[in-house]
Amino acid sequence: MNEFNKTMIADAMPPKAKFRPLAVNQIKVDGFFGPKIDVIATTTAKLLFDRCIEARMLEQVDPDLPNPGIVIPFQHNNTVTTQMFWDSDFGKSIETAAYALNRHRDAELEARVDDVIDAYGRLQAEDGYLNSWYQRIEPGKRWTNLRDRHELYNAGHLIEGAIAYFHATGKRKFLDILCRYADCIDATFGPEEGKKRGYPGHPELELALVKLGRVTGEQRYLDLAKFFVDVRGEDPNYFDKEAMARGETPEDFHFSTLEYCQAHKPVREQREVVGHAVRAAYLYAGMADVATEFSDATMDPALEALWSQLTDRNLYVTGGFGPSKENEGLTFDYDLPNDSAYAETCASVALVFWASRMLGREPDSRFADVMERALYNGVLSGLSADGTHFFYDNPLESHGHHHRWRWHRCPCCPPNVSRLLASIGTYFYGVSEDEIAVHLYCDNKADLTLAGTKVTLKQTTSYPADGSIAFAIEPESPCSFTLSLRIPQWAKGFTLMLNGEAIDATAEKGYLRLNRSWQAGDHLTLELDMQPLQLFANPKVASDQGRTALLRGPFVYCLEEADHSAPLNSYLIKDGAAIETTSFGAWPDTVALKINAEVEGRADNALYSDTPPSREPATLTAIPYYLWDNREPGEMLVWLRREAIK
Amino acid sequence: MNEFNKTMIADAMPPKAKFRPLAVNQIKVDGFFGPKIDVIATTTAKLLFDRCIEARMLEQVDPDLPNPGIVIPFQHNNTVTTQMFWDSDFGKSIETAAYALNRHRDAELEARVDDVIDAYGRLQAEDGYLNSWYQRIEPGKRWTNLRDRHELYNAGHLIEGAIAYFHATGKRKFLDILCRYADCIDATFGPEEGKKRGYPGHPELELALVKLGRVTGEQRYLDLAKFFVDVRGEDPNYFDKEAMARGETPEDFHFSTLEYCQAHKPVREQREVVGHAVRAAYLYAGMADVATEFSDATMDPALEALWSQLTDRNLYVTGGFGPSKENEGLTFDYDLPNDSAYAETCASVALVFWASRMLGREPDSRFADVMERALYNGVLSGLSADGTHFFYDNPLESHGHHHRWRWHRCPCCPPNVSRLLASIGTYFYGVSEDEIAVHLYCDNKADLTLAGTKVTLKQTTSYPADGSIAFAIEPESPCSFTLSLRIPQWAKGFTLMLNGEAIDATAEKGYLRLNRSWQAGDHLTLELDMQPLQLFANPKVASDQGRTALLRGPFVYCLEEADHSAPLNSYLIKDGAAIETTSFGAWPDTVALKINAEVEGRADNALYSDTPPSREPATLTAIPYYLWDNREPGEMLVWLRREAIK
Repeated sequence: MNEFNKTMIADAMPPKAKFRPLAVNQIKVDGFFGPKIDVIATTTAKLLFDRCIEARMLEQVDPDLPNPGIVIPFQHNNTVTTQMFWDSDFGKSIETAAYALNRHRDAELEARVDDVIDAYGRLQAEDGYLNSWYQRIEPGKRWTNLRDRHELYNAGHLIEGAIAYFHATGKRKFLDILCRYADCIDATFGPEEGKKRGYPGHPELELALVKLGRVTGEQRYLDLAKFFVDVRGEDPNYFDKEAMARGETPEDFHFSTLEYCQAHKPVREQREVVGHAVRAAYLYAGMADVATEFSDATMDPALEALWSQLTDRNLYVTGGFGPSKENEGLTFDYDLPNDSAYAETCASVALVFWASRMLGREPDSRFADVMERALYNGVLSGLSADGTHFFYDNPLESHGHHHRWRWHRCPCCPPNVSRLLASIGTYFYGVSEDEIAVHLYCDNKADLTLAGTKVTLKQTTSYPADGSIAFAIEPESPCSFTLSLRIPQWAKGFTLMLNGEAIDATAEKGYLRLNRSWQAGDHLTLELDMQPLQLFANPKVASDQGRTALLRGPFVYCLEEADHSAPLNSYLIKDGAAIETTSFGAWPDTVALKINAEVEGRADNALYSDTPPSREPATLTAIPYYLWDNREPGEMLVWLRREAIK
Repeated sequence: MNEFNKTMIADAMPPKAKFRPLAVNQIKVDGFFGPKIDVIATTTAKLLFDRCIEARMLEQVDPDLPNPGIVIPFQHNNTVTTQMFWDSDFGKSIETAAYALNRHRDAELEARVDDVIDAYGRLQAEDGYLNSWYQRIEPGKRWTNLRDRHELYNAGHLIEGAIAYFHATGKRKFLDILCRYADCIDATFGPEEGKKRGYPGHPELELALVKLGRVTGEQRYLDLAKFFVDVRGEDPNYFDKEAMARGETPEDFHFSTLEYCQAHKPVREQREVVGHAVRAAYLYAGMADVATEFSDATMDPALEALWSQLTDRNLYVTGGFGPSKENEGLTFDYDLPNDSAYAETCASVALVFWASRMLGREPDSRFADVMERALYNGVLSGLSADGTHFFYDNPLESHGHHHRWRWHRCPCCPPNVSRLLASIGTYFYGVSEDEIAVHLYCDNKADLTLAGTKVTLKQTTSYPADGSIAFAIEPESPCSFTLSLRIPQWAKGFTLMLNGEAIDATAEKGYLRLNRSWQAGDHLTLELDMQPLQLFANPKVASDQGRTALLRGPFVYCLEEADHSAPLNSYLIKDGAAIETTSFGAWPDTVALKINAEVEGRADNALYSDTPPSREPATLTAIPYYLWDNREPGEMLVWLRREAIK
């Protein structure tokens, strides 16, 4: 049993790591994200529980209810059913509910969460083991198929849910349950003689254990996270040995290669982002966490190479990745098809996790720029404006047949996007002993401790509607620390005023690092140039050639059929065409873009003709990508046809 | 038992239908297709047997060999393994071998075929039933799952193989075996009380039975073909009833909808090409055959609507169709993605079958134009130049990762493309009592009977290398009949000379119909304008906008990486750019195209940049699409980027 202070909010473990996120209850978010968190808090958080229960998940968890048996058929040669992942869906839903309760205390929602927690309490085995699939549906088979069956992955999500619920409510019952389960896992896996040298087939537990170590102060959890990272991919391969023990041939693995789960070689030898996208980014996030916590530079070559290979050759302009539905993941460099893009919402969520953890060592806008791009595009797109419908895959072009769904038999994305957005404030800042790095801009107020002094930091801004961000710095007493402000790569310029006077500052790794003795009343104003940009893709990205994407600030834009009169690929714009910003009827707070264009047409209706199309002038209206499919269904297009100016 | 003359070559049943194809042994093919048939005759035909036997197919067929059991795992919720289709692979391989033997008598190949035929003879049940899966692997389950398990489909391919082998060798053993099986099927299925009202889940048997009726003179086989067409899709649905009899829920059908197998409604009510592409076109071919044989105009509204919906809205420029891998078939109108195109080789083969049967009523170039386009592109692409490797799916754009394969666990395409090409002469002509329609041009000599007179018709031409075709008409005695010559839609003009003098002729439904008393020594010369064309797709085809395809004669062209120095989507051509024809090093008989173009480039290697690419002049070399992936592996592109001229 872990003993720690019930009322403690910040981490129990001191930050030997350089930069740590704040806890969700240290930040009050308004501005752009405020209403989005409110929608989740008032609508989505409850709806997740409704739909989990409708899907019969609680029947599987609660030992007092009749056993539902197999509800969702097996797939993949009878090795996997999404039902095996149900604990993770509850874990993420509890996490979302926790952030919702942090935002708006709601007795009814809290009671529902407590009921599920009570069921998990009743389910937990004597030795701490806790997995509704293996306890209720396939008893006796625990720890026999780490590769395929998400057993340790489920544990990770339950742990994250428990931590969030503790942070939000101060209640420790669920956290205690999960500590007992973590202790059970710790007793089962590890480098010691007699323990298993296994690790999660679907990484996630690694980063959860780091969180658990920080919040409980238990070094053992950090050590276990490190063990799972270190042991992964060692030869002979644990998953192969496990398959043989089950009487299977490792070569019969449905996904053919252990690259699918990034277990093909030890992590420090990995240089290419391969396999299932979500697994990949969760693993790399865990690696970065471990590298930070253990000041382990031996992971750096892998982390740097993986980051570069993803962001230089395999990242959609929306911050999505993993183009293929087949493996829900990576294929080959520069393979970024738009209409068939898988780009799972969870992959962009996972990329935000990874990027945020790459910021653990120092402020570096390479990571924060990607985090911002993924957040405002590939993540936000996953949730409908009203918080009730979800995207699983996020193509960059739709011919009218791709729409948000109410639920999915693999419902990983809805609670994932919800838990991230509902806790988005924790991604705004990285805090070390004497520095606060501002990674993301948004109206908010944060309470924290810097150099031993309580400091309130307030951002007042309508960003990203405009690029003006006012900071009020309120230390309890004058205090010397560094305030670091990210200058996004997309900003063509910026100005900075300190207490009303312009100051010259040069970005270092993309951050203005302002070190001084701060005192109450200090204020800064940062103005970021938000001029809209046309982006052009590397010639090796076949799908984007002859095309351009529109960007303003963190937003990638798209066309929707609702605003246009012809098929969207009939329009084309000239390189350098004037782009005007405008407000938008459907969502008045949204900055839309107006662009002069041309539209092609044909008199006849033949499928193929040897007569080139004719042209007319036209005007395009582009909206932020994340807002698409919130109106009448129709086409959508990110990469617009372009022509060079003559 | 069917009695008919062993030495008879032409159909036993007189042509009450208007236009019929010739038998393979009535035509000697040279010119463009001659060497291709030779490759199949000398290489591919044997290789198909090698690979069928290597795949252990003969072990399943031959009751004297140990039963191999399940060799290929089940898929689709344990309802289907491709092993169930093995009889069809042997059927098509025997058919290919038959045409090979017709081309080059080869005692060794003939002996191998006879061995397989002997095995089928030993396998055949007392009552004529013949299906190696149900007799050897799952005995006792015959006729329990027509929807999924290809039982009647296999019968059709064996019948077609038997007819071809009879035509090629005069040997009737296999034909007798298959007539007994057809009699068994006829005793099992039909409108009569006590017979099953089932029909093929995968159509094919329909057109095979029409062939069998024609060759044997047995009206019963035509009637059975008509029954299978007529009963399809009747309510309540036979496949649903069969599923319930198996204890299954019809709604659990893996492909969700009976549109997948075109059994969602009676065929005469069908207006949209839906579901699995090969099944669809085989069915429509059978419908057209039945409509022709029974002079049944009630099928016309369906056939016309289906043809139009396919060719006006769902056909790749290569004559492929069925964009989706999910259902190996259709999705929604104008959905023609290039890089992810499934466009199965078998679908183009089936389209040739369907188109050829739509020509049964009258010459109409709507059908022959599509037949030619599919044949020279989507079909020919299925077989490597050396006859040893195969394409299953035929994308119109590849980023370097799509290649021909040696074999496939669902090896339907290799023998299908082979049997079509090896018998291609039978698609050149449609013959009625007093008319011969020339649908396809190629150097060849045909022996036939017109208006009761023996006629030899000879085409001398290097078409499609050039557009000049000389016809020599040699009737045994002067004879009045119509010679109809197709003017392809792509020909911008033509000239016609009769016995050395230019004559004026106007195409009627795309054919010049020359009715006169022909006598020995008459000769015609047709010159078709072969100028290369740029094609532009309908604005509703999202994937092709801002792009153009190059066409010359029947060939669609493509770029290959082997001939170019930059990613293929870096090149663009102006509308109306001059296109020159040229010979081509790798295949000197091939007409390549040279086009002036521009190429875009970038100094930096960023994934996304706000600087437009720069431009340089460039020259493109395009080769016929079907030849791609016969050299070093690399990119391929059919739809090239274009810009309008300013």
